[in-house]
Amino acid sequence: MRGVVMHAPGDVRTEDLEMPVIVEPTDAIIRVTATCICGSDLWPYRGLEPLAPHGQRMGHEYIGVVETVGDSVTSVAPGDYVVGSFVASDNTCEICQAGYQSRCVHQVMMGSVGTQAQYARIPLADGTLVKTPGEPSADLVPSLLAASDVLGTGWYAAIAAEAGPGKTVAVVGDGAVGLLGILAAKQLGAERIIAMSRHADRQALARRFGATDIVEERGDAGVAAIKELTGGLGAHSTIEAVGTQESMEQAIRATRAGGHVGYVGVSHDVSLDGFELFFSSVHLHGGPAPVRAYLPELIQLIWDREIDPGVVFDLTLHLDEASEGYKAMDERRATKVLLTTD
Amino acid sequence: MRGVVMHAPGDVRTEDLEMPVIVEPTDAIIRVTATCICGSDLWPYRGLEPLAPHGQRMGHEYIGVVETVGDSVTSVAPGDYVVGSFVASDNTCEICQAGYQSRCVHQVMMGSVGTQAQYARIPLADGTLVKTPGEPSADLVPSLLAASDVLGTGWYAAIAAEAGPGKTVAVVGDGAVGLLGILAAKQLGAERIIAMSRHADRQALARRFGATDIVEERGDAGVAAIKELTGGLGAHSTIEAVGTQESMEQAIRATRAGGHVGYVGVSHDVSLDGFELFFSSVHLHGGPAPVRAYLPELIQLIWDREIDPGVVFDLTLHLDEASEGYKAMDERRATKVLLTTD
Repeated sequence: MRGVVMHAPGDVRTEDLEMPVIVEPTDAIIRVTATCICGSDLWPYRGLEPLAPHGQRMGHEYIGVVETVGDSVTSVAPGDYVVGSFVASDNTCEICQAGYQSRCVHQVMMGSVGTQAQYARIPLADGTLVKTPGEPSADLVPSLLAASDVLGTGWYAAIAAEAGPGKTVAVVGDGAVGLLGILAAKQLGAERIIAMSRHADRQALARRFGATDIVEERGDAGVAAIKELTGGLGAHSTIEAVGTQESMEQAIRATRAGGHVGYVGVSHDVSLDGFELFFSSVHLHGGPAPVRAYLPELIQLIWDREIDPGVVFDLTLHLDEASEGYKAMDERRATKVLLTTD
Repeated sequence: MRGVVMHAPGDVRTEDLEMPVIVEPTDAIIRVTATCICGSDLWPYRGLEPLAPHGQRMGHEYIGVVETVGDSVTSVAPGDYVVGSFVASDNTCEICQAGYQSRCVHQVMMGSVGTQAQYARIPLADGTLVKTPGEPSADLVPSLLAASDVLGTGWYAAIAAEAGPGKTVAVVGDGAVGLLGILAAKQLGAERIIAMSRHADRQALARRFGATDIVEERGDAGVAAIKELTGGLGAHSTIEAVGTQESMEQAIRATRAGGHVGYVGVSHDVSLDGFELFFSSVHLHGGPAPVRAYLPELIQLIWDREIDPGVVFDLTLHLDEASEGYKAMDERRATKVLLTTD
């Protein structure tokens, strides 16, 4: 089968790889019908995260059809159309049951499996995979694929930020996750949603997803603009979807005392000053999103065409063109790249 | 009148000071019947926080009797017995109404007023002072005084940590706030409370307040002990009541994914690593406690003798002996010092 391997920063190749096989009785093998490139895949692409020494399999987002299942798998069967989270989880341990499947005691990061491929082994299939109501029409595939990580992560950010009725929500980061955080905040009933973005095309998407205001300024000026829009108090809820020192400080400072910061940008070289955080009086919550918890609801919303998160994909390429997809995202020519596998 | 002034680290004197007068129509003047020394007063005492150049008035905890009120004060009158928070607040602004009176848009830190004195001016009296049901008997005074900060702060820590039924709560810090965090967690219905303490007398008080387990280890060993007691997962809720790098890391690491850290130790030279925090998946919330929000409930619990937080005072001195009180707390000969004023 064909699959994507990163050999060095900037060096992504689609290669012939061995077909995955059932290893544990809890595994399933799926035929991946669509996968995509994540903003987090750009960290190693840019040399900011180490790679496995002999090349690293890439990808952790996927939608597909079950091919075979291990002996103990009971909830899915060959032929089922499924979506799963970027973290495989048993969905039964105490942490999963508390809604933190991304920190399951048996968690397997799907990035270590590599789903930018024609087939993938899904560990803990019963806990990880969620069936769609049937075979999706082609136009639903991008949105269902988005549920696997980028939508689920934006959703979690909005929940962690306690977005909801009567709330003003600020969103730091206009990448795919930030944009889908806007969609989530809107779905959760937020009254006002302020997108922080300086790119016209992303501003347009932000407004389509429900942003009521746009702030183009960053840093202190951006914080001042948010304060200006909120009677000097700051947002009730702030979604942080970048993961840098500047974006975290911007998110914390843009939030009112007693407000909530939901942060989902994977932190890179971030150090939070305890004194400032103490006197900010904000709630801070985030980390890897427990996407599995939201999949049934998100799949249904997509199936019912209530939400269309798939529009964040602004470039579709074949798996064999993955290298160009990474390049386009790295150069910000694309927000999010979908990879077809046929 | 007599009042306490810190002139330099280690140099605390009780002096003759001018009687406070009404400045704003929202002020009240109270005769302080009891005040105390706070753990946070030790930071400048130890030279770790700057002092005002010509000596700094000290104290922010108080119980007393209203002497006079400004023209616009309506909720308290001369003769009323009152307790107030260590932060004066209007209790009407949007932040106060959301339950964060310690970050009121008109907040006045009582430490800038100085309540280690026979009389004190209380700004925003209507929003700040809460009447007791009547003149308290002498044995209730220490507990009512504790409500002013140390109890209210421990209470907030337990609420920020979402202590409650079915929860295992770990408490980092065995000072007065940590001990009263235990009392609060117990009142809030926590199932199991693990006190981290290596002092026999404080362990005894911890157990009296509701601790079910004691962990003597600190740092990594302390975290390992908490994990050992919680099936490898960590506490659901952790109260942090110290404010150092070690205590914050201990609190975050002792908490399970999805759990809650309530931190109330004023942060000193604390820097939190973003990457570790991200993958901890904890909720982090804290800061200066909105004691005013809890005062009516706390006063009633004390009045009804349901809780006895006043036992944290293990040394009572006269205001004129404040210097000895600071010394005793600095040398850890006393947990918390009450100062009488007559």
